[in-house]
Amino acid sequence: MALCNIGLIGAGTVGGGVVKVFNKQKKFFNTTLGLSVALRRIVDKRPGVLATLPTADAICSHNPDDILNDNDIKIVIELIGGITEAKTIILRALNAGKHVITANKALIAEHGPELFEAAEKNRVSLSFEASVGGGMPTIKTIRESLIANEIISVKTIINGTCNYILSQMTEKGLPFGEVLKAAQKNGYAEADPTLDIGGGDTGHKLSIMASLLYAGYVPFKKLYIEGITGITAEDINFARELGYCIKLLGIIRKESETSPLIEARVHPTLLPHGHILSSVSDVFNAVLIEGDAVGPILLYGKGAGELPTASAVISDIIDVTRNITEGSPRRLQMDYYSTGCEIPIRPISAITGRYYLRFSVVDKPKVLASIYAILGDHDISISSVVQNERSATDFVPVVMITHDAREDNLQKAIGEIEKMSVIKQKTQLIRIEN
Amino acid sequence: MALCNIGLIGAGTVGGGVVKVFNKQKKFFNTTLGLSVALRRIVDKRPGVLATLPTADAICSHNPDDILNDNDIKIVIELIGGITEAKTIILRALNAGKHVITANKALIAEHGPELFEAAEKNRVSLSFEASVGGGMPTIKTIRESLIANEIISVKTIINGTCNYILSQMTEKGLPFGEVLKAAQKNGYAEADPTLDIGGGDTGHKLSIMASLLYAGYVPFKKLYIEGITGITAEDINFARELGYCIKLLGIIRKESETSPLIEARVHPTLLPHGHILSSVSDVFNAVLIEGDAVGPILLYGKGAGELPTASAVISDIIDVTRNITEGSPRRLQMDYYSTGCEIPIRPISAITGRYYLRFSVVDKPKVLASIYAILGDHDISISSVVQNERSATDFVPVVMITHDAREDNLQKAIGEIEKMSVIKQKTQLIRIEN
Repeated sequence: MALCNIGLIGAGTVGGGVVKVFNKQKKFFNTTLGLSVALRRIVDKRPGVLATLPTADAICSHNPDDILNDNDIKIVIELIGGITEAKTIILRALNAGKHVITANKALIAEHGPELFEAAEKNRVSLSFEASVGGGMPTIKTIRESLIANEIISVKTIINGTCNYILSQMTEKGLPFGEVLKAAQKNGYAEADPTLDIGGGDTGHKLSIMASLLYAGYVPFKKLYIEGITGITAEDINFARELGYCIKLLGIIRKESETSPLIEARVHPTLLPHGHILSSVSDVFNAVLIEGDAVGPILLYGKGAGELPTASAVISDIIDVTRNITEGSPRRLQMDYYSTGCEIPIRPISAITGRYYLRFSVVDKPKVLASIYAILGDHDISISSVVQNERSATDFVPVVMITHDAREDNLQKAIGEIEKMSVIKQKTQLIRIEN
Repeated sequence: MALCNIGLIGAGTVGGGVVKVFNKQKKFFNTTLGLSVALRRIVDKRPGVLATLPTADAICSHNPDDILNDNDIKIVIELIGGITEAKTIILRALNAGKHVITANKALIAEHGPELFEAAEKNRVSLSFEASVGGGMPTIKTIRESLIANEIISVKTIINGTCNYILSQMTEKGLPFGEVLKAAQKNGYAEADPTLDIGGGDTGHKLSIMASLLYAGYVPFKKLYIEGITGITAEDINFARELGYCIKLLGIIRKESETSPLIEARVHPTLLPHGHILSSVSDVFNAVLIEGDAVGPILLYGKGAGELPTASAVISDIIDVTRNITEGSPRRLQMDYYSTGCEIPIRPISAITGRYYLRFSVVDKPKVLASIYAILGDHDISISSVVQNERSATDFVPVVMITHDAREDNLQKAIGEIEKMSVIKQKTQLIRIEN
């Protein structure tokens, strides 16, 4: 049996995890599973990084060319992250006829079609299980296990940093900024947390999932994305009082069996207590998929981190090795991703749902009546209201939960309400899922 | 591309679901996925069954030979259930060089080695995703997605009937017999529920999972299996008072990285409120897998029923079709299942854990002291006790939760305690998981 030699580029957190786990299990792979697979080369540009790892008999060096130019390497693992250099490396590897495995969600979400086209052209595979949901088998479940299903919806908590921050705010009643700082201190948030807390990371993962679910390309750039930076401890308290928690959700929804239109959006969301996703706390992730045959399926686990992500990368290694060994390297085709067939997304202005609204108003008679009147003019009715007692400041928060409303109607109504002189701050709007 | 013709034997609940879902999606399989797969023949012995199904262009008949003798059929789906006839059909199909897909957990658990050996010998595959957990991708997750992990433990709620009955007993405070009758009436329990409520069905699924996890054979007959028929509404109430719910769990646990010994057992189990499995209610199933790299992973969904199970069968159809199409029909080998390498199981007498004990005692002074003394003689200490007020009957229940204890010590102690004249009923013993 021909040996499947692997070249690993990037030995940071995830790459280091891959080295550790692969070398721990290599006897199992090569004996019990009857494969023939070896971690042949490891490249990391940074001096000293490789010395700390159990690299066993791998050849360690600092130049990606050492892997890209090695004809004995059949599988390249890209774990350097980022866009430009990673893209160059992956395209070079594919064009050299090597199979590629990556955890790079940003790259797949933003440049997927080009990459899959190159894989297609060169009759090799590009695998990316680790790009979504770390150790949870998200990609495989969508592409293989649920293949018999029309997917009705996906609701997912898929960014550990955001979920940790919102969980801590909920548990401890602390403001966003304070919790973020603590999270950065103890390693749950990056030094530059923009991509996480801004919702971009969730968007990248959502773009990949939606593209797989609907057999086309759902471009990252066309998603509606709103992060968690605007969520206050006050909102979390009001939500709890009304029977909800607040989570950053990625939501995908098929409009109907006959329409090609989908919803695909990322935003903070009120979820009723008792909803299965409401109990997903801290750094844990979950993906709730509703299929027409299977009903609701939940995957739950650690969506990031050294070893969980390594677990997903290695599942790809074994899959690709099995494919190569059995002579079916193109077993799972991704041609539909690269056809340029873009799935149309319903604009956020045209979605319908329930909303949490928090107005800051001067506490004068008839203010509520005026707000009700404007909402009513735009076909928006209210299911519950919380108005706390007069506060020490000049204005008081008034929180309303709407019945089903169209978002553009709601935005128009808010625009008019904010023109009233008694409104003192921008209105808080958070979407609700049941 | 050669057409993959399928023959389906058994068009009952699951078989009927397969016909419906396959025919709904066949355009997607043959166009978008680029496969070439057709449901060519459907066989059901019972007259009239096939007339009610959307069989499309399949040839319908009543004799399995019509499929087994058809050289154009490459994939046989066995969905008649039971042992004897199903085994004959599967062995005939494998020996005729046909790939087989089955949902038959009893057959795989009790005769797996013989079946996989026949598949091996004939260089064909035997797929069984639908045998464990219905629509949840349990088998694929274990065999493929978690392949990088040493599995530390599995805890699973994998029988919908038992979970429904225990959920209803908990919610409504009703006794077992009454809830079982209602469950039979509304279709949540079979007319003969023995295999479900006796724990055998959970045991079959556990045997399959354990065999896959530890690359050997964990025979169904060697599992410790205890059903839910002995659980009373009183136990559920006491458990709740102490902060627990009661679920029928299948438990697999690796003793240590160096020992080959595993625990594999099925029994009612106290789970603390807040445990992720404690919120899995009614007919829902869940599998909680703890891997050394991935940490805890949970799969949750409908573990049975027409369409969820059909979803799993069809994921196998597409997998096998891809393998045949790509020329790798033996891609996932199962030879380790058929090597006769049996995984040793720790006897239940030698396990260690915490226990819920309910004694029925005559309410006399010093009774508790005597029980404590006997337990202490066997190295068993108690972490909490509930003794209700004197009841109308002559005896009162006393409930104790132990600290960690060895089961054989506990059984000896109970034997001695039950010899006391003040003990009026058999002691209730329920194991606890954290």
